[in-house]
Amino acid sequence: MAYRLLYPIRTYLVVSGRYGEEVNVMAADWVMPVSAKPFMVAVAIAPTRYTYRLVEKYGEFVVSVPSVENLRDVWIAGSEHGPGKLRKTSFDFAPASRVGTPVIRNALANLECRVVDKHVYGDHVLYVGEVLAYHHREDAYVNFEPRLEAGFLAHIAMNKFTKFAREVVTVQ
Amino acid sequence: MAYRLLYPIRTYLVVSGRYGEEVNVMAADWVMPVSAKPFMVAVAIAPTRYTYRLVEKYGEFVVSVPSVENLRDVWIAGSEHGPGKLRKTSFDFAPASRVGTPVIRNALANLECRVVDKHVYGDHVLYVGEVLAYHHREDAYVNFEPRLEAGFLAHIAMNKFTKFAREVVTVQ
Repeated sequence: MAYRLLYPIRTYLVVSGRYGEEVNVMAADWVMPVSAKPFMVAVAIAPTRYTYRLVEKYGEFVVSVPSVENLRDVWIAGSEHGPGKLRKTSFDFAPASRVGTPVIRNALANLECRVVDKHVYGDHVLYVGEVLAYHHREDAYVNFEPRLEAGFLAHIAMNKFTKFAREVVTVQ
Repeated sequence: MAYRLLYPIRTYLVVSGRYGEEVNVMAADWVMPVSAKPFMVAVAIAPTRYTYRLVEKYGEFVVSVPSVENLRDVWIAGSEHGPGKLRKTSFDFAPASRVGTPVIRNALANLECRVVDKHVYGDHVLYVGEVLAYHHREDAYVNFEPRLEAGFLAHIAMNKFTKFAREVVTVQ
């Protein structure tokens, strides 16, 4: 649990599979950008997850950005295993523009990624994806600056989550 | 700036160099755990940074966790280049236990890392470090669960930062 020294951290959703065929969603805290140009993200996935199988199979994934309104679904996606859990959620899937994996329409943003590299580190596999396309809710970001009112989710530990203070501190 | 679709995200400090010889500190948003056992972290560093030179030279780095009380120093470490900027900061360096790079005593936590892998992705180099030792302020974490009162810092954009709401949401 020493990794929680880096917590609280943002919680995201990783969508895998194929729209209309097989789809899974997991909650993932270990997601971050690794390059601005080209835009690339890294996602660490345990090989015990069903998502691992689908990312291996299709070489694509979508990172979706949930808000506090998706919290219940985030918790189900993170704590239960296999696509059967999706019946309990209200994720609204739609076809992506550049990958076969669907996006989640009722999330704040979606990043469509193609796997360009992968490495095993300890108990996780780190996938690096190039972001081929992205979409976001107009009211959640202004010129790529996130608006705290959107209710971005952060994970503290287990089933404890939080969001950000509304207060923006500007350093001069 | 599309990478800001994943913001706000936590801001950390990356210390590089050798205690008492040459030391540098940069602010880094692109830091995350990649394995729980063994505990490993990934840090993306642009090769234009002075930190890149020192991590290349020594194969070690320390991830320090700043609080809002370190905000001014975080901003200097992130917006200015080269170790000369450290004279304007109040980082309190101390020898680490397992690496030659110092820890920052007036931070919430310190993770002493040895580089075990590295890859170039776009405009950054991703370093994966095994965490050889860690230390934290007693009041900032309880059984590795972060206490929001500690004032963990998050980055929104440019010189805009925020912290977490004090409210913990528990999902059942």
